[in-house]
Amino acid sequence: MVVILLKSYRKELWIHTQKRRGFINITDKIENCLRESEILEGFVLVNAMHITASVFINDDEKGLHNDFERFLEKLAPEKPYSLYEHNGFEDNGDAHIKRTIMGREVVVAITNGKLDFGPWEQIFYGEFDGMRDKRVLVKIIGE
Amino acid sequence: MVVILLKSYRKELWIHTQKRRGFINITDKIENCLRESEILEGFVLVNAMHITASVFINDDEKGLHNDFERFLEKLAPEKPYSLYEHNGFEDNGDAHIKRTIMGREVVVAITNGKLDFGPWEQIFYGEFDGMRDKRVLVKIIGE
Amino acid sequence: MVVILLKSYRKELWIHTQKRRGFINITDKIENCLRESEILEGFVLVNAMHITASVFINDDEKGLHNDFERFLEKLAPEKPYSLYEHNGFEDNGDAHIKRTIMGREVVVAITNGKLDFGPWEQIFYGEFDGMRDKRVLVKIIGE
Repeated sequence: MVVILLKSYRKELWIHTQKRRGFINITDKIENCLRESEILEGFVLVNAMHITASVFINDDEKGLHNDFERFLEKLAPEKPYSLYEHNGFEDNGDAHIKRTIMGREVVVAITNGKLDFGPWEQIFYGEFDGMRDKRVLVKIIGE
Repeated sequence: MVVILLKSYRKELWIHTQKRRGFINITDKIENCLRESEILEGFVLVNAMHITASVFINDDEKGLHNDFERFLEKLAPEKPYSLYEHNGFEDNGDAHIKRTIMGREVVVAITNGKLDFGPWEQIFYGEFDGMRDKRVLVKIIGE
Repeated sequence: MVVILLKSYRKELWIHTQKRRGFINITDKIENCLRESEILEGFVLVNAMHITASVFINDDEKGLHNDFERFLEKLAPEKPYSLYEHNGFEDNGDAHIKRTIMGREVVVAITNGKLDFGPWEQIFYGEFDGMRDKRVLVKIIGE
């Protein structure tokens, strides 16, 4: 008798950016997790474990990333820090809002052991309050 | 022979805010659902069942919530109601847009029977057209 | 002995809009997928496979869709194309940002073989760089 069990896999990715803000392509790292998991059909959840960072899917194109930076700075500028009531003992009020716009997480389908992606989809970590160790959670369930 | 089955759990949470807009920490309620479900590994989906409300993850800090309120009112102000073509027979055009910015849902990993969270992650219900009964759906699948 | 297995289902929906931007209600198509899948309990992931398009949940009301169009054009206008560094060889810098605001994907609970929705929830495809063939991925896992 063959019984197909639900499998689950978990990994934390550590990220440390040199600047306060930046976008890092983590697609390769997620593909490595998927291979390690040996899961062929299911979903992978990739989420920032910090509330001033994002995980999102878009194009790996430097000009676009600069456009995102400009767009976010216009909507929720870093300075003056007094713009945000949150900045009593902190200076990252803008980062909480930027992360909200870009999103906390992505859920991606897994089909035949691969990320089931369209032609240009790439997974990015978006940092808005960096220069310290932060984590991304990769959780896969399936069979 | 041990066979691990896919389990699923469902619950509706009812919420009624005293004001038109507000943020409510529902993390405890989701943890209660998780205990009731007895699911140890999987995903929990938490979503607003109404299209003028959000579920999102961020910090439980009053100043930040005030910053979100100001940010959203600047982007999509409640008044004048004539700003929105949607406001023919309704007055909640702004609420549909605010909810879109903050997001409809979160998916959270479950590991060892717990919400697999970073240090400051908390789940919030965001209300943008309240003062009436509304619902949040909690759906858990796993084993 | 009864063993409940994890089932998975996958389908691509093809969409071709006549204009650069538009919102299309795809709820019926997702319900058809769900019937085909014969999955009774689980999650369905619906995501744009292109990075200038969205899948989101909101109201099927024309005035609201016009409000979304105006809101997005104000935040990230299509023209002048020189606004975006991404527009070196392309003209869709605005579309990448609009899709980010509206979101890439939704995850919806499946209960008793149906989309587990509140009273007004409908699933939309949001196109921001259309007039060509594009795809939406529907992936269902459950039992």
